[in-house]
Amino acid sequence: MRDELHESDTRSESPRSPGRRAFLRTGLAGAALAAGAAASVSRAAAEPTPVTEPLEIPEWTRTMGRPIPPEMYGMPSKYEVKVVRRRSDVFVNRQNWSDWSMSPLQYQHGIVTPNGVFFERHHAGTPSIDPERHRLVIHGMVKRPLVFTMSDLMRYPSVSRFHFLECSGNTLTDWTKAASTTVQQSHGLLSCAQWTGIPAAWLLDEAGLQPGASWVIFEGADGAVHTRSIPLQKVMDDALLAYGMNGEALREENGYPLRLLLPGWEGNVSVKWLRRIKVVDRPAFFRSETARYTDPLPGGKWRQFSFVMECKSVITYPSGGMKLPGPGLYEIRGFAWSGNGTITAVDVTVDGGRHWQPAVLEPPILDRCLTLFRYRWRWDGRPAKIASRAVDNTGYVQPTVEELSRVRAVTGFVQHHNGIFPWEIAPSGEVKNAVA
Amino acid sequence: MRDELHESDTRSESPRSPGRRAFLRTGLAGAALAAGAAASVSRAAAEPTPVTEPLEIPEWTRTMGRPIPPEMYGMPSKYEVKVVRRRSDVFVNRQNWSDWSMSPLQYQHGIVTPNGVFFERHHAGTPSIDPERHRLVIHGMVKRPLVFTMSDLMRYPSVSRFHFLECSGNTLTDWTKAASTTVQQSHGLLSCAQWTGIPAAWLLDEAGLQPGASWVIFEGADGAVHTRSIPLQKVMDDALLAYGMNGEALREENGYPLRLLLPGWEGNVSVKWLRRIKVVDRPAFFRSETARYTDPLPGGKWRQFSFVMECKSVITYPSGGMKLPGPGLYEIRGFAWSGNGTITAVDVTVDGGRHWQPAVLEPPILDRCLTLFRYRWRWDGRPAKIASRAVDNTGYVQPTVEELSRVRAVTGFVQHHNGIFPWEIAPSGEVKNAVA
Repeated sequence: MRDELHESDTRSESPRSPGRRAFLRTGLAGAALAAGAAASVSRAAAEPTPVTEPLEIPEWTRTMGRPIPPEMYGMPSKYEVKVVRRRSDVFVNRQNWSDWSMSPLQYQHGIVTPNGVFFERHHAGTPSIDPERHRLVIHGMVKRPLVFTMSDLMRYPSVSRFHFLECSGNTLTDWTKAASTTVQQSHGLLSCAQWTGIPAAWLLDEAGLQPGASWVIFEGADGAVHTRSIPLQKVMDDALLAYGMNGEALREENGYPLRLLLPGWEGNVSVKWLRRIKVVDRPAFFRSETARYTDPLPGGKWRQFSFVMECKSVITYPSGGMKLPGPGLYEIRGFAWSGNGTITAVDVTVDGGRHWQPAVLEPPILDRCLTLFRYRWRWDGRPAKIASRAVDNTGYVQPTVEELSRVRAVTGFVQHHNGIFPWEIAPSGEVKNAVA
Repeated sequence: MRDELHESDTRSESPRSPGRRAFLRTGLAGAALAAGAAASVSRAAAEPTPVTEPLEIPEWTRTMGRPIPPEMYGMPSKYEVKVVRRRSDVFVNRQNWSDWSMSPLQYQHGIVTPNGVFFERHHAGTPSIDPERHRLVIHGMVKRPLVFTMSDLMRYPSVSRFHFLECSGNTLTDWTKAASTTVQQSHGLLSCAQWTGIPAAWLLDEAGLQPGASWVIFEGADGAVHTRSIPLQKVMDDALLAYGMNGEALREENGYPLRLLLPGWEGNVSVKWLRRIKVVDRPAFFRSETARYTDPLPGGKWRQFSFVMECKSVITYPSGGMKLPGPGLYEIRGFAWSGNGTITAVDVTVDGGRHWQPAVLEPPILDRCLTLFRYRWRWDGRPAKIASRAVDNTGYVQPTVEELSRVRAVTGFVQHHNGIFPWEIAPSGEVKNAVA
C-alpha cells in the first residue's frame, strides 16, 4: 500500500502547485522502472508517442467548416451519440406512461448535468404546458389565498443554487447481486443543476399562515396529478419554486414551467409542473405516501416519509462496461453527495475494502450538491476491486450494504440504497459490477 | 435615495433569513402606502390575484403526456423558441464563413450558460472532427516532442473549473452611441461554463522545456488554422487543455474534441480544435496578432497582445427590448466578471450615475467566472437610467467610457470595451439602450 499512500499524500489540485508536478515525475519513475521504459508519466499513464514525422493534415483542416446553422440551439457532435439518456423500457417495461430515463453519469465531466441528459421520471408522460396559461394557487390554512401567473412569479426576487436531484429508487436493482452493467444503469437516476427560483417561504409569507399549519401539499398539473405532503418546516427552510435549471427555463420533462425543488430530499417530492400549494395541519397520505415511496424495516413494518437522500458516492471512472488498456497510472474519479449537507471526505479502496485512502475533492464543494473526487492509482494488472466511501459534514459515513441491512429489510426493489458500490477490474482490463 | 439605501441594507440572500422576509414586508408597507392598496409585497411586486374560484383544469391535466421520445438527448420546450443564439449575419454579414453568434444573456438564470446557446466564433466555419483521428502534437523547444491521441489525453488526471469566456469584441458596437437593442446584441459574446481538461503545464513538463523557451504557439485544426502566440508563464500558470464543458464533451462550435482555455483572457486566444503546441522563444506575430485583435491608443500607436478581459458587468433584467408592466418593486439582476480574479462588489445606479448602492452577490463567487448580482428597486414610474459598476479583488473598478477613452482611441469597432453600460426606462416601461 506504500505507493497509494504516497500518491494520495499530494492533495493540491492546483496546476500551479510544484508538488503536483513533482508527484507526476515520482509516479512516472516507479512506472518506468516496472516497464523498463523511458521515464515519463505520460508513457506510463497515457502512452503518447514521440514525434517522428509531421502530423497528417486531415480533411477538416483543408476545407471550410459548417456555417452557422439556421436552428440556433446547438447540439452535441455526431461522434457523441452514445452520450444520451437511457430509457427504462429497455429493461423494465414498454408501456411508457409511468416511466423514467437515466443520466449517462460515466461520461459526465464536471458537477453540472447537461439539461439534455438530465434524468427524468414521470407518472403519466410529460405534459407540454403553455406558460401563459399556467397558474399557481396557494390556499388552505392561509390568511389570503393567492393565484399567480408565471409573469407574476418571475418578477419576484429569486435565488440560484447548485443542488443534486436523486430518485429514491436510484441503485435499487443492485442491493445483493449485480443487475446493472454501467453506472448509468446503477446510479443514473441522479443529476445536478443550478436551479433558479423563488424561496417558497417568501410566497407563504405573502399568503400568511394560519395557526396550526404544519404540513404543505404540493400538486402537479400533469395527467397523474402527482401529489405529496411536505412538513411546513422544510418548506419554510429551503423549498424553492424553480423555473430555471442550468441557465435556462426548466425542460418539459423536468417540470416546465414551474416545479418544487426540495434540496437533498428524494426526487419524487420535488413536484414537477407545480400548480397548487395547499397549507394543511397533517399529511394527506396520498398513494405516493402509502403504496409507493415507503421503505420496509426488518420487523415487518414500513417507514413512511423517508425524505432525505443520505450520504452516497460512486466511482464513474473506471466503471462497469469500460475496459482499461493495460497496467499503468489511472485517475479514479467519481461523485459524492449528501442530502444532509456538504461532502467533507471521500476514501477510495482498490483492494475490496481492506485498505482505504483519501481522495482529492474538487472545488467548489457545495451544500447538497454533487462533489467530484479524484484518486491517482497505479494499476499493476492484477484483479482489483475498487469502491468509494463518502463522509458528510454531519459525520455520517456512507455505509456498506451489510450495515444498511441491519436497519432495513432488503426485499426486492427497496429504495434509498446509499451503500458502498464496488467495481471489479479483471486482468483483461474489463470493469464489471462487483456487487456480490 | 432613502428607500434604496434601506433596501440594499438587507444583504442576506438566505431564504432562512428572517431579515430577508422582514424586508419584504417593509418594502411592501411603503408600496402599499403609495398605492393605497392592501399591504402586500406580492401585490406591489408581482400582482398575484386573490383566489375567488377554483383553478381551471387545463387539457394537460386531463390527458396523458408525451412518452419518452426515441431520441434521448432532450431539448427545451417549444414555448422557449425565442431563447436561441443570435447569428451575426442578421446585422453584419451574410457570407457565414468568418462568423459568430451570441448568447441570449437576458434569459440566462444562473451562472451556467447552456451549451446549446453558448456563444460561438469561427474564422472558417465549424469543423466536424473525428476524435479517433484527431492528434495533438507538442514540439519546438522541448526535450521530447510528443503526439497524443484523445484516448491518451483522457487518461490523464484532469481538473474541472468554472470560467467565463468573452470575445474581445464583446460590446464593441456600443462605445459612443446606441447600436444594440438587447443585451444579447451588446454583451452576448460572453458565456460561462465548467470546463474539464488537463493543465497544459503537466504535458509541457512531460515534454520537458528547453532553456530560452518563453512563448508557446497554439494552432487549431479548423480550415482557418487559427493560431496565437501565448507567453509561457500564462501557459504554465493556468492554461487548460479542455475536452469537457458543462458536464459533456465540448460542442463542435466550441472546439470539439479539444481546445485551449486561458482563464480570464480574450476568447480568440483560447484556440479551438487544438492540434499543435509549439514552444518558442518569441511571439510569431500572426495575422491575428497584427492585423486583428489589436487596440488603437490615443497617440496613433496600436497595442498588441492585450490579453486580459478586465472587470466588467451588465444589467440583464430589466434590459433593452423589455417592457416593465408598471411601477412597483423590481429585482435588478445582472452579471459581473473579471479576467483578473474574483468580483468583490457591484454597485447599481438608478439615476444615471448620480448615486450608487451596493448589490447583493449570489454565491458561489468564483475566480474568473460570471458572478450574479441582485438589487431590489422600487420603480416610481418616472424615467430612470440604470447601470452597474463592478469591482474585482485587485481593487480595479469598472470604468466609464469617458475614463476608458483617456487611455484608448475609440475609433470605430474598437475591442476590449469594458465600460459601464446604461439602460433607460421610459414612463411607458419600455427599456432602451442609453449609450449617449
